[in-house]
Amino acid sequence: MDLHLKILSLLNKVRKTITKHNLLSRGDTVIVGVSGGADSICLLNFLLLLKEYELSIIVAHVNHSLRGEESERDADFVKKVCRDNGLEFELLVENASAIKKEMGKSIEESARIIRYRFFEILTTKYDAHKVATAHTACDQVETVFMRLIRGSGLKGLSGIPFFREPNIVRPLLEISKDEIKGFLTENKIKWVEDSSNTEQKYFRNKIRHKLIPVLNELNPNISENILRTSEQFTLNDSFISEHTNKLFKKVFRKTAAGFYLGNIKKFNKVHRFIKFALIREAIRRVNENLLNIDFDHVDSALKLLSSKKISGEVNLPNDLLIAKSYEDFIVTHKSKINPKYSYTIDSFGQHKFEHVSFRIKKVKVKKLDLGSNVALIDPKKFKFPIEIRNFRPGDKFVPFGMKGEKKLKNFFIDEKVPRYLRKLFPLFIINGEIAWVGGLRMSERFKVKGKECIKIEYSGRYI
Amino acid sequence: MDLHLKILSLLNKVRKTITKHNLLSRGDTVIVGVSGGADSICLLNFLLLLKEYELSIIVAHVNHSLRGEESERDADFVKKVCRDNGLEFELLVENASAIKKEMGKSIEESARIIRYRFFEILTTKYDAHKVATAHTACDQVETVFMRLIRGSGLKGLSGIPFFREPNIVRPLLEISKDEIKGFLTENKIKWVEDSSNTEQKYFRNKIRHKLIPVLNELNPNISENILRTSEQFTLNDSFISEHTNKLFKKVFRKTAAGFYLGNIKKFNKVHRFIKFALIREAIRRVNENLLNIDFDHVDSALKLLSSKKISGEVNLPNDLLIAKSYEDFIVTHKSKINPKYSYTIDSFGQHKFEHVSFRIKKVKVKKLDLGSNVALIDPKKFKFPIEIRNFRPGDKFVPFGMKGEKKLKNFFIDEKVPRYLRKLFPLFIINGEIAWVGGLRMSERFKVKGKECIKIEYSGRYI
Repeated sequence: MDLHLKILSLLNKVRKTITKHNLLSRGDTVIVGVSGGADSICLLNFLLLLKEYELSIIVAHVNHSLRGEESERDADFVKKVCRDNGLEFELLVENASAIKKEMGKSIEESARIIRYRFFEILTTKYDAHKVATAHTACDQVETVFMRLIRGSGLKGLSGIPFFREPNIVRPLLEISKDEIKGFLTENKIKWVEDSSNTEQKYFRNKIRHKLIPVLNELNPNISENILRTSEQFTLNDSFISEHTNKLFKKVFRKTAAGFYLGNIKKFNKVHRFIKFALIREAIRRVNENLLNIDFDHVDSALKLLSSKKISGEVNLPNDLLIAKSYEDFIVTHKSKINPKYSYTIDSFGQHKFEHVSFRIKKVKVKKLDLGSNVALIDPKKFKFPIEIRNFRPGDKFVPFGMKGEKKLKNFFIDEKVPRYLRKLFPLFIINGEIAWVGGLRMSERFKVKGKECIKIEYSGRYI
Repeated sequence: MDLHLKILSLLNKVRKTITKHNLLSRGDTVIVGVSGGADSICLLNFLLLLKEYELSIIVAHVNHSLRGEESERDADFVKKVCRDNGLEFELLVENASAIKKEMGKSIEESARIIRYRFFEILTTKYDAHKVATAHTACDQVETVFMRLIRGSGLKGLSGIPFFREPNIVRPLLEISKDEIKGFLTENKIKWVEDSSNTEQKYFRNKIRHKLIPVLNELNPNISENILRTSEQFTLNDSFISEHTNKLFKKVFRKTAAGFYLGNIKKFNKVHRFIKFALIREAIRRVNENLLNIDFDHVDSALKLLSSKKISGEVNLPNDLLIAKSYEDFIVTHKSKINPKYSYTIDSFGQHKFEHVSFRIKKVKVKKLDLGSNVALIDPKKFKFPIEIRNFRPGDKFVPFGMKGEKKLKNFFIDEKVPRYLRKLFPLFIINGEIAWVGGLRMSERFKVKGKECIKIEYSGRYI
């Protein structure tokens, strides 16, 4: 290959990107996604030219079967390029249209998911260090504007990352399409044109063909500005994430039952922007994603948490609930704290149900050793079947050490059990009477008088 | 005025904006900028309709003399509106074109400066609480895109603030132009059209007429998205500022001489994004603004500070210098730490110069009490005239307690005086020899042997 000075300077630009973002190491095995278009053919050639990295290159091509014969032509073209350069060629033939239906996503998104799954498989097969994709500076600018226009949080405006976990690298992210085409033309390197690129079929293509020309007219340096801005966004976002995670550990504690309980006082001390980030992070940990959660949802949670009301709750999409009570608040799936159950038991031994697990046996005790998860019941009062169910309005019992009956609701209030945790305590009901609020308090009426007793142990804990 | 339901709901939208951002208080005196265009006429009418605030309204109109007779017509129109509503009318006639030349700014920018200066004057005259301007949601969207396209830091993307220090409020910032025109038309309220708005003369107008239509086509909800995004930016920016200022106090200390010295170790512990913010904040404190300072400048400072070199410096525009030495670094105007001076003194008493102030007198001492800002000189060695100048390469002296001569440079190194502070120490030279490195160390050769001595005190301190 005959290298002009201009080309060398372009290659050096790529080298700089690679060094700055630590994209490649010497001796890396790299899976390169090659569609056959200008960008990916250019990427492949650059990687071949970066001799100092001594890379082992495997080319991955996905035929999405979206463009009939043209798709076949592209696959054949990439295969030939690999043969000419003595490179491994990996082909995946998929029907993206069919898979689109299955996934319920856009065709573009489905094709993307298929590609990245293929890269994962190849990473394992070749024990590869990196997967390189050919995203360019132009893709970056388009992405930033796409997200801005569609409405994305600040996070989205960071655009395409140079490096994405676990092993995706984008060495061309600071190179423009013009530079790429110049490089290929000057070196007489062939590529194939993807006809779908010129159709205004997808949103990205609309951005490319309608918006970008107007932006370029308004400022010929628009790309540089956007790249710089999105770099700042990335930095900003990385800092916010780091800071939020640090504060998350200070504001939230994980209960024995795996719930995150936030401390309202600590929460209200942080900056409003970080409050948003903390609530979003809590939702992410509970729900895995933030789908359908928008600014107003989080804002209503913030209002609840800063209000003077002792308790209250906010319902969010995806069965999510944010509830406060006393000093704490919880972010959870509603169904998780509002189970409805009633089990009838007529034998000793270990019992396991969806909502509660416990063991009942007869024992002799020398000392009354009552842990919060253990109840010792007077055998004279005990009779099968017993019922294990959770709190219902109107429930009453006689708390250990007291004489009169008390509403369970008031007992919970006195014990400062947050409202949203109350349905999680199993009630052990003997002879139609609450003998034990599991994990919290026994009934005075069932207390042991001799050495013989019925021991109930249960393994749940909520606070 | 006949109020339709739609109008009431629009007024309530404005009420919400006002409440949410705390823009008005009951009984406020408000200066309202009224050009006579739809936006400002609408703003004026809304403020009149917000009876519950019991506002005292003063209308301010600036005739920029940019559009000849049309300018006169607008001024007359606003004057008539005020007469009809019994409102104070304040008129400023300016020649913005002439002032543009004087200011060396764009005509738009000059006109803006003139307007806000007028608002300031009126604020004082009427002891006003607020100045209300008629920026709309459309202005907001345009501003965000203008800054994005021209290249602005993240801060700029916050757009137009609802409230700006000391007293500027924008109650229409969530109302669109369509809503405004609808309101005026339905209520048969007249306004004047500004012909310059329809010319593609200014960058903002290009954005308005070329870019916004494309964006609206790509997403009809673009305005809402951008407003929401810029609200997030504002919050983000407010948090970053707060966090940066907190860290600034931890990382920097102000020396006795008013220099900010940053601790390199503490600096390097913070997140890269906050490093950028800290350097920018230090520059802002030194230079008042960040003109001509870009990403690369700050980046080069970060490189210097994280490098293993003991000392080094980075030159920035506006005579700015960032220099490190040992554990500290300084952000300063270069001229401030590189003075060149030499003063000749031939009398006792108080002496004041630009770079150094000191007092010389004969005293008798019982005890040798040497503070760092005091030197006691043997009168036998003392002789007028003496010279006071700062460090030059090649300077030598015999440090107190030592026998041999030492290079002053090496003395500074041993004393860990950062390189960038060395030229700040005044050298007191007697008989052509350094008798005192002011504020640091006397010469062994000039030390006092009896009770009589020459006392020199100087009032500077640099560390």
